Amino acid sequence: MVSKNQIKLITSLQQKKYRIAHQLFFAEGVKGVQELIDSNFELVHLYTTLNDFENVSPAIRTMVQDQDLKKISALATPNSCLAVFKMPIEKEIKTSGLILALDAIRDPGNLGTILRLCDWFGIQQVLCSKETVDLYNPKVVQATMGSISRVNVNYVDLNLFLSQTQLPVYGTFMNGENIYQSSLPSQGIIVMGNEANGISQEIESKITSRLTIPKFGAVQKAESLNVATATAIVLSEFCRG
Amino acid sequence: MVSKNQIKLITSLQQKKYRIAHQLFFAEGVKGVQELIDSNFELVHLYTTLNDFENVSPAIRTMVQDQDLKKISALATPNSCLAVFKMPIEKEIKTSGLILALDAIRDPGNLGTILRLCDWFGIQQVLCSKETVDLYNPKVVQATMGSISRVNVNYVDLNLFLSQTQLPVYGTFMNGENIYQSSLPSQGIIVMGNEANGISQEIESKITSRLTIPKFGAVQKAESLNVATATAIVLSEFCRG
Repeated sequence: MVSKNQIKLITSLQQKKYRIAHQLFFAEGVKGVQELIDSNFELVHLYTTLNDFENVSPAIRTMVQDQDLKKISALATPNSCLAVFKMPIEKEIKTSGLILALDAIRDPGNLGTILRLCDWFGIQQVLCSKETVDLYNPKVVQATMGSISRVNVNYVDLNLFLSQTQLPVYGTFMNGENIYQSSLPSQGIIVMGNEANGISQEIESKITSRLTIPKFGAVQKAESLNVATATAIVLSEFCRG
Repeated sequence: MVSKNQIKLITSLQQKKYRIAHQLFFAEGVKGVQELIDSNFELVHLYTTLNDFENVSPAIRTMVQDQDLKKISALATPNSCLAVFKMPIEKEIKTSGLILALDAIRDPGNLGTILRLCDWFGIQQVLCSKETVDLYNPKVVQATMGSISRVNVNYVDLNLFLSQTQLPVYGTFMNGENIYQSSLPSQGIIVMGNEANGISQEIESKITSRLTIPKFGAVQKAESLNVATATAIVLSEFCRG
């Protein structure tokens, strides 16, 4: 059973203002939930239709029916379990290695997919502009597939941060140096821009190295790449050595 | 105004069986619609809240209000116009150059994003297994951002096709040759697998070259990449030369 108050609390966590007010967020699905339980995140309560999760104390574990899960889930097709976690305290920014900076990424699926990529490529620090979608949006959490627990994400005044850094700042544009022929460092900041508008003018003025992903083929009509796939190509080039 | 019969027809096109029955599909949004109008696709009717599209005959162009568009749209937030097109006749499979084969890609956003990538990298032929999501699903059409008109897509018995081809067949796995150190041809078939299960056993037996995208960093906990981002990295490696 899930009480009316629990339903009200959990569904409210779909909205950022309530996540901030309660300092809570939730994750869904066995794989993602298990990864967060195994991480440093603090589990508040687990609701599950399954008989596993035996490592979770019964005091904070409730067996529920499918119809109960449906009442608290953000998914059209709920996925066996939902877990509420405390929002961790924001850690200090790591300024070594490669840093990925996101300038107003709006789509939660894109942010989640990009964090999963960072986890794969060993990028430990992501900086989000204040206009970027919230990290604890349920769709972001879902799309990270557990990577949210392994990548350090900070929301910053990106323009100010880039004004003060000594690190080289890379960005991709339609015109720039061919990324496949560029010498790319193991330390620096890579900026990826908004889905519709790319990198904003303000941020563009802080870019020290303009890169381009060249198009191939005879026709070349595609105008742009999805930001997550562009990030995949850029990170692959920086990391492949 | 949009008549009740038009609303019924267009909303029915959200389902594959009705798309096949009517041999029609629809696209939404100015950019995507304009690209399809400018392509070889045959426009049946355009519904728009805007005063442009003057190149479209008034006989097949209806000005509508936002509330009418909402009744026919598949989007939560309709995007100024919706256009119904004839489903084109499937073209012959092109067996030159690089071919991308999709083994049961289920998510419409992933298929659309992958077609946009193919357009960027000049991949002219995509083969979808019969289990792959339908090309004319409105979410696929949307995510291609117009690339649907420039990439040739055929649905085939993928296992049979791969059994009969003389071309090398590449696939990515957790174990395989490091893709960054492999010599990759300009002719061949690249197989990408299902979101949850990867390449199926049946298809795996047809792979002639196993590749892997290596992980980086100290922790290496990420288990997998999203299929669209993995496709981005693989196509980038095949094309970068």
